[in-house]
Amino acid sequence: MKVFNEETIKNTYKMSNAMHDIEQLFKNMDGISQAQRIVIPTGDGAKSMLYMPCVHTEWERGMIKITSITPDNPQHQRPTTQATIIITDLKTGEHVASIDGSYLTRLRTGALSGLATQYLSRENASTLGMIGTGGMAFEQLLANLEVRPIKNVLLYNRTTSKAESFKKRVADAFPDLSITVVEDVDTLTKQADIINCQTQSADPVFDAQNIQPGTHINGIGSYRPDMKELDNRILPKADKVFFDDIEGVKEEAGEFIEANEKGLFKFEDVDGDLKDLSLNGTIQRSHDDSITVFKCVGTAYFDLAVALGAYDRLMADSH
Amino acid sequence: MKVFNEETIKNTYKMSNAMHDIEQLFKNMDGISQAQRIVIPTGDGAKSMLYMPCVHTEWERGMIKITSITPDNPQHQRPTTQATIIITDLKTGEHVASIDGSYLTRLRTGALSGLATQYLSRENASTLGMIGTGGMAFEQLLANLEVRPIKNVLLYNRTTSKAESFKKRVADAFPDLSITVVEDVDTLTKQADIINCQTQSADPVFDAQNIQPGTHINGIGSYRPDMKELDNRILPKADKVFFDDIEGVKEEAGEFIEANEKGLFKFEDVDGDLKDLSLNGTIQRSHDDSITVFKCVGTAYFDLAVALGAYDRLMADSH
Repeated sequence: MKVFNEETIKNTYKMSNAMHDIEQLFKNMDGISQAQRIVIPTGDGAKSMLYMPCVHTEWERGMIKITSITPDNPQHQRPTTQATIIITDLKTGEHVASIDGSYLTRLRTGALSGLATQYLSRENASTLGMIGTGGMAFEQLLANLEVRPIKNVLLYNRTTSKAESFKKRVADAFPDLSITVVEDVDTLTKQADIINCQTQSADPVFDAQNIQPGTHINGIGSYRPDMKELDNRILPKADKVFFDDIEGVKEEAGEFIEANEKGLFKFEDVDGDLKDLSLNGTIQRSHDDSITVFKCVGTAYFDLAVALGAYDRLMADSH
Repeated sequence: MKVFNEETIKNTYKMSNAMHDIEQLFKNMDGISQAQRIVIPTGDGAKSMLYMPCVHTEWERGMIKITSITPDNPQHQRPTTQATIIITDLKTGEHVASIDGSYLTRLRTGALSGLATQYLSRENASTLGMIGTGGMAFEQLLANLEVRPIKNVLLYNRTTSKAESFKKRVADAFPDLSITVVEDVDTLTKQADIINCQTQSADPVFDAQNIQPGTHINGIGSYRPDMKELDNRILPKADKVFFDDIEGVKEEAGEFIEANEKGLFKFEDVDGDLKDLSLNGTIQRSHDDSITVFKCVGTAYFDLAVALGAYDRLMADSH
């Protein structure tokens, strides 16, 4: 079994690769077979182990992502979430590789937002507002930069000093970007063409009243019924609402579960999933002034797409 | 993540270690939390991926065993079953090791039979009859040798040439043993003090009529409802019947599911599980002439016991 650490993967496998590989999988979904995610609590609160297996019978490969959630880790300068992905060659039955899954998870989640932005946002969107500047934010930024001519980035975080640190990191990587930390989220909401939310907030992180016509919103933070970062009062005003995976959102996305219960938005009215967007391949908004929303919770077949793509490139590099 | 291959593990971790570590776990079962085994079919017939996760919250460690079943592998000189075990440190959340799981699975299954033999068979049992000489057989032999003064080994296999090959392997490892390949299973049944069955047969591999008073039987082969290697007509004559894990046997052991349906044996009449035997610590048979039966299907916490035990010894060796 080969072991690939995060640094090696980062040097080999980029955002454009991840977006490409996820779109390739959308053309080959028949081979996908995945089991319900397993969660085993391992301590207080959210402390747990997550196991997400998925196979592709036509491609004759399978993988499982193994994730530990250790809530008190930040106090010890360790990440809360740590993942590894084990790849199995189904032709021989051999377990061929262990690939660090933390960067790949951030990258695939970024890639999902990137694809949503590509197929839902205005083509000339140039101002990106980011709400939440934690561990998932950098790859969310990368994804939006990949598909739209972003010039201005507005950053909001509950703890402003963290937004400032993130600003430095972004400025180092992209010196041509104009980057502004805002103290008031409404400033961001009113200016952004694209709003990308990556928090685990139990309450809405913006006010739907302040969303401007023409805005596209990506919500990737809420992944449990008690998490509700998107203000679901935006949904009745939305021209298009897409999910990464409809079954996952129904089970896990708190703001949508609440909206469905309250009648603000019915699950059966969803316009489709990311696969539909990708296979259609054109921008799905009625007007420049339309509001569009994408909600992402993640599911194992996206991990499979990037894990196999990364593995192939890593193996090609090592020859 | 450290990777340990089969050769390294074999040199470090032996049958006596596995039996010891499983008995240690029996004294610390409160910390065990495991999810239902996941099976994803990956092709025709039995071709599949199996995922068996288990954590020990008090010991602050978790593991998952990932197993591929590739039925046409023997045609390509590869094993049908290939397993790897990933260990996670729950204190830090780090995925610390990948340990080859094929030898460890054979070893732990042997250790379970060894413990059953230790606590159920006659103390002076000296003749071991083995039915089935396939991939699991060698560690089954090792386990019985570990706990009883075995002098004679009788081998039966449907394909006699395979029993002859196995005999050579055993003779090389244990030159003092008297080893006989029998063509007729009744010869074995009538002479053996302990009968150890490791086949995946859909039909009984011995005739209950021929089982002699005082015999102990270990059945480790049947692990699906359609597998019935033990002749369940022996059960009404049995003094004691123990399972490795009661819930597992109810779900998976074909001959017991059938016996329960036919009324030959009721699950509620089981005398206990291997933990009960181990914690009691004395031989559980009423007389020298009693017949005792142990049925094993395997479950994830046994894998956890040997995986953590092997990991600790491997790490100690590497310092």
